[in-house]
Amino acid sequence: MKLTGKEGFTFMEGGVCAAKGFEANGLNCGLNPNKEKNDLGLVFCSVPCNTGAVYTQNKVKGAPILVTKKNLEASGGISRAIIVNSKNANTCNADGEQKAERMSQLAAEALGIAKEEVIVASTGVIGQVLPIGPIEAHMEQLAEGLTVDGNERAANAIMTTDTVKKEVAVEFVLGGVTCRLGGMAKGSGMIHPNMATTLNFVTTDVAISSALVQKALDEVVKVTYNCLSVDGDTSTNDTLTVMANGLAGNACIKEENADYEIFKEALYIVLMNLTKMLAADGEGATKLITCVCDGAPDLDTGIVIAKSVICSPLVKCAMYGADANCGRIMCAMGYAKTDCCVTKADVYYISAAGKILVCQDGNGLAFDEDLAKEILMEDEIEIYVDLHQGDAKATAWGCDLTYDYVKINGDYRS
Amino acid sequence: MKLTGKEGFTFMEGGVCAAKGFEANGLNCGLNPNKEKNDLGLVFCSVPCNTGAVYTQNKVKGAPILVTKKNLEASGGISRAIIVNSKNANTCNADGEQKAERMSQLAAEALGIAKEEVIVASTGVIGQVLPIGPIEAHMEQLAEGLTVDGNERAANAIMTTDTVKKEVAVEFVLGGVTCRLGGMAKGSGMIHPNMATTLNFVTTDVAISSALVQKALDEVVKVTYNCLSVDGDTSTNDTLTVMANGLAGNACIKEENADYEIFKEALYIVLMNLTKMLAADGEGATKLITCVCDGAPDLDTGIVIAKSVICSPLVKCAMYGADANCGRIMCAMGYAKTDCCVTKADVYYISAAGKILVCQDGNGLAFDEDLAKEILMEDEIEIYVDLHQGDAKATAWGCDLTYDYVKINGDYRS
Repeated sequence: MKLTGKEGFTFMEGGVCAAKGFEANGLNCGLNPNKEKNDLGLVFCSVPCNTGAVYTQNKVKGAPILVTKKNLEASGGISRAIIVNSKNANTCNADGEQKAERMSQLAAEALGIAKEEVIVASTGVIGQVLPIGPIEAHMEQLAEGLTVDGNERAANAIMTTDTVKKEVAVEFVLGGVTCRLGGMAKGSGMIHPNMATTLNFVTTDVAISSALVQKALDEVVKVTYNCLSVDGDTSTNDTLTVMANGLAGNACIKEENADYEIFKEALYIVLMNLTKMLAADGEGATKLITCVCDGAPDLDTGIVIAKSVICSPLVKCAMYGADANCGRIMCAMGYAKTDCCVTKADVYYISAAGKILVCQDGNGLAFDEDLAKEILMEDEIEIYVDLHQGDAKATAWGCDLTYDYVKINGDYRS
Repeated sequence: MKLTGKEGFTFMEGGVCAAKGFEANGLNCGLNPNKEKNDLGLVFCSVPCNTGAVYTQNKVKGAPILVTKKNLEASGGISRAIIVNSKNANTCNADGEQKAERMSQLAAEALGIAKEEVIVASTGVIGQVLPIGPIEAHMEQLAEGLTVDGNERAANAIMTTDTVKKEVAVEFVLGGVTCRLGGMAKGSGMIHPNMATTLNFVTTDVAISSALVQKALDEVVKVTYNCLSVDGDTSTNDTLTVMANGLAGNACIKEENADYEIFKEALYIVLMNLTKMLAADGEGATKLITCVCDGAPDLDTGIVIAKSVICSPLVKCAMYGADANCGRIMCAMGYAKTDCCVTKADVYYISAAGKILVCQDGNGLAFDEDLAKEILMEDEIEIYVDLHQGDAKATAWGCDLTYDYVKINGDYRS
C-alpha cells in the first residue's frame, strides 16, 4: 500500500520507537502455540508521557480497558509503558480485571515504575480465561530485551489475523525543532470503530499538554479510524493511546496555536495511513476501497454516507468481483442514516487504471464496461460520489468482501 | 424449512390464490433471457380490495413505489391487481416513473379496471433502463392466462437470486366463517428491512377495513420482516401489500375486536413463515439462524439486540463454520444501539441436536465442544440469550455468511 503524505512530513522507519526516548520489545511467551509469532509486547518511555486515549463504545468492554482507564485516571493522564498480549482478549471472564491488574503490576515491577503509569491491552478470543502464568514467567525477559529498535518485535506481538505489520512514523519540524511521531496498529476483522479501533499505540517526543493530546486525538480519530470499516463489527477491546514525552525539546504546546495544527497534521498522517493499512489488510481482503463523498452539506453527513457505502456487503462483493454496479452505491447511500438528499448524485469509479462516470444526477448511465472492469481490477479503488448538496468532503476506508473472510471467520477460535 | 404454526390455523397450498376471488399468472416476457424463468407476474381480484402497504425507507426509492403510492392514494386505498416484473428494478432511471405508470396502465387496460387500482412493483438490477416493449407485448397474454391456481407462476415471476419459491397460506375461522390468507415473497440478498422488505404480496378474503388492514400490517411487520436481515442492505424496492376482498363473508372487522386479533394472528403466521423462508434462502446461506432475545426490558430493546446478533458478519461466519464462539455473540450484543445492560447475559446454542450453555452471567464457560459442534452442524440454529433485565422476548431471523454469498454478488449484473 502506498503511503499518503504531505509536504513537511517525512516518512521514516521505527514505528513506536521512532520518537526519542521510546524502547520496545516483543516475544512469544506461550499464549500462542506458534513460537514464531510474538504474543506479548512492551513499550517503555524513559520519562513520563502526557497521554490521550480513546476506547471502544461497545458496552461489553474488555477488562484491560477498565484497568487502563482506572490507571490513567489515577496517574492524572500520565503513562510510561504499554503491556499488551495477543491470542486472548481477556474479555467476558469473571477474573478479567484481576488478570489485567496483575499484568500492569508485573510490567510496573519489571520497569521500576508505578502501576498507574501502565497502559494494558489484550486482543484475541473473547470468553476464554487468560492464562497469566506465561506472562508472569516472561515479564523479566521482556523488560530486559527493550531496545530502541524493538518496534517490529512489539508490532508483531499485537498481530492476530493480520497478514502484515502495521507501522507508520513521520518526522517534522515544530518551531525549529525536529520532532517525530509514530505508531503501530493491529486489526483485520471485527473492525467498525466507534471512538477508536482495534489496538493502536502512538508515541511522540513532542512536548504537548495532556488536554491537547486528547483534543487532537479526538479530532483526528473522527476523520481516520472512525471512518474505517472492515466488517461492521465493533470490537470489545478497541484502544488507541498517544504518549507524548516532550523529549524533542519544542516549546510545550499548551494552546491551539500553529504548532498544535502541525502536531495534529502529523497525528493525522500517521493515523490516516494506519487506517488505510488496516483497511487494506482487512480479513480476506484483496482490495483497499476508499469512498470519497463530495458535495455534502457538512462533514458529518458526508462521513455517514461514505461509511454507508464502505460498509455495504453488496458494494464489497461487487468490488471483489470488479462489477461496476452503480445500483449498489446508490442503494447504500439511500439507506445511510441522514436526511440529506442522495438521489441526485454522480458516481465515479477511480483507480490507477483510470476514472469512469457510471451514474449521473442519480440515474444509471451506459458506460464502457471494459474500461470499468480494468479500473476495478486494481487493488486500490476509489468510489467518488458528488451529492451536489454543499461543499463538504469526507472519506471512508474499507475493503472488499471475499471467500477468505468467510474462511478465516468460520473457525476463528482454532 | 419447517413451518411454524399455531392451533386454529391450518396451512394450505395456494399462496396468493388461496383466498377466494384471487387469480394469478406469470410468464417469461423476455426481460430474463432464461426462457424457463418467469419475469412478469399478475395478481387479480374480481372485486375491489381494502389494501394496506408498507415500503422501503431507503431514500433512493424505486419508481414503482412512487407510482403505487400515488395510485393507492388516488383510489382511497382500494386495489384490484398487482403487476410485477423481475430482472430490472426500474430504479435510478430518468424515465422510471413514466415506465411504472405505463405498466400500471397496461395492466388496467388488460383487466378492465382503473389504473389507480393497480399495485406496480419491480425487482432486479438498479440503474438500467427498463425495456417496456416486452411487457407491452405480453400483457394481453398474461391477463388471459389468469387462473385460480396460477399462484406458482406468479411466485416464480418475482424470484431473482431466490433458489426456492416462497408461498405460505393459512385457513382459519372468523365468527363461524372459514377465511383464508396467503402470500408470496421474493428476496435473497439486499435484505435488511426497515418498515417492509423485498417484494411481498398477501391476499385474503377476510372482510376488514383499510385502516385496520394497515394497522395489523404495521404491527406484524415490526415483529416479522423488520426482524429479518440477510446482509444489512436495505433495498430500494421493498414493498409489502395486503389485499383484503371480503368474499369470505365474515362480519366486516371495523374495530380492534377478537376477530381483529385472529386476523392479525393469521397475518403474523404467514408473514413470520415467509420471513423464515427469506432468511433460510438468503444468498449463499446454508443455515437459518434465529436469535431469541429473552429477559429484555421491553420488546423494542429485545428486537434491537436480537437483530444486532443476526446482522453480525462474524456471528454469521461462525455459524457457517459451526464454531460455538460466544465472544461473537457478546460482542454483537455489546454494540447494539440500546442502553440496556448486556454484560450479564446467558448465551445458549439450540438446534434439533440439543442445547448448550456457552456463556453465563456474561462470562464464557468451558463447554463440551463436540456437543456444540453437533448442535451447530444442523441447518436451523437458535441463538438464545437471556439478558435478565425484564420479561420481554424478541426474535430475529437471519442466515450464515458463506463463500457463495460472495460469489453470487461478485458479479450480480450478469
